[in-house]
Amino acid sequence: MRFVLASASPARRALLQAAGVDPEVIVSGVDEDQESGPPGELALILAEHKAQAVAERLALNSATALLEPTVVLGCDSVLERDGVAFGKPASAEEAVARWCDMRGQEGVLHTGHCLIALNHQPAGHRSVSALASATVRFGTPSDTEIDSYVATGEPLHVAGGFTLDRLGGWFVDGIDGDPGTVLGLSLPLLRRLLADLGISVPSLWTQ
Amino acid sequence: MRFVLASASPARRALLQAAGVDPEVIVSGVDEDQESGPPGELALILAEHKAQAVAERLALNSATALLEPTVVLGCDSVLERDGVAFGKPASAEEAVARWCDMRGQEGVLHTGHCLIALNHQPAGHRSVSALASATVRFGTPSDTEIDSYVATGEPLHVAGGFTLDRLGGWFVDGIDGDPGTVLGLSLPLLRRLLADLGISVPSLWTQ
Repeated sequence: MRFVLASASPARRALLQAAGVDPEVIVSGVDEDQESGPPGELALILAEHKAQAVAERLALNSATALLEPTVVLGCDSVLERDGVAFGKPASAEEAVARWCDMRGQEGVLHTGHCLIALNHQPAGHRSVSALASATVRFGTPSDTEIDSYVATGEPLHVAGGFTLDRLGGWFVDGIDGDPGTVLGLSLPLLRRLLADLGISVPSLWTQ
Repeated sequence: MRFVLASASPARRALLQAAGVDPEVIVSGVDEDQESGPPGELALILAEHKAQAVAERLALNSATALLEPTVVLGCDSVLERDGVAFGKPASAEEAVARWCDMRGQEGVLHTGHCLIALNHQPAGHRSVSALASATVRFGTPSDTEIDSYVATGEPLHVAGGFTLDRLGGWFVDGIDGDPGTVLGLSLPLLRRLLADLGISVPSLWTQ
């Protein structure tokens, strides 16, 4: 089974690797700023666009390579606060302002997932997709802590301007949902999508 | 600041490293089976014993080394189900039986934390401790998935017989609380304990 991750996110790749799957990464090139809509819908649509773009490229370029069973996974994450979608902060100033606004508050992290099983004929591709959402309860970092955190550069590279498993973990008090959803890829949801396509999780484990 | 982790857990060390702190690991040698009591209380007492054992060893062996400000962190985790504490499974058979019993159910993962700031005089040590607890909602792996998971050996090395961030992540549907608590060390709780001792989190970041 060839497992292709249609995402440049190091967090998603690391999460899959820790969970026994070593994906081949093919970045979709989809422009995340081209879409708009309600935050959850947006994450799902972008996940589908990413998976479709990579699936089409693979189907066009390598008919023979598809002799090997191949799945493509696209994911996209946004943070929703007060009905507004927040992706990566555009600048350090924006990251600081967002943290000053969201400390002590809650948000919802949405991650869209789209899984496509490739067939020799594009018409035979099978696609399943679903959204995972988790509530995030932000801690109360001081102004100094926010400045120090943003100065590390970490918030600028991640949806919502925070991580859960790296430096940002100090400043998130808790979540309600799957932590993977907050990191960018929900393993239990992916397990259900794989089952829909007749693929068992242990069959993917490389070790 | 010398930061000593009084625990052999690779997950705790990795969590601290990802969060910017590269701890010195000194294993306490405390026998986890010597204590009993309600699960949360047990985790807290064992965390305290681990930190105290390492703090005493450091204070005895290296009066000069204590010229450098030093803190010692002890942690201990247990899974509570129906009032009973579950540590590491003793055998593959026990791990399989536990998973058959806990799939589709909930449990509470308790992690006790004890942080000691060393002084030149043992009587001058300052110690703070606290318990973090998180609800874990287990997924519903099939018998085949449970067998495959236990065959990897992973469940035998961890409290409760599961991980959240490795292979076990496929079979945990969600949590309510800090994911770090489930992994064995809660960063937001540690941030509060550090603050109690007058230490700021960014001052510990090595990068």
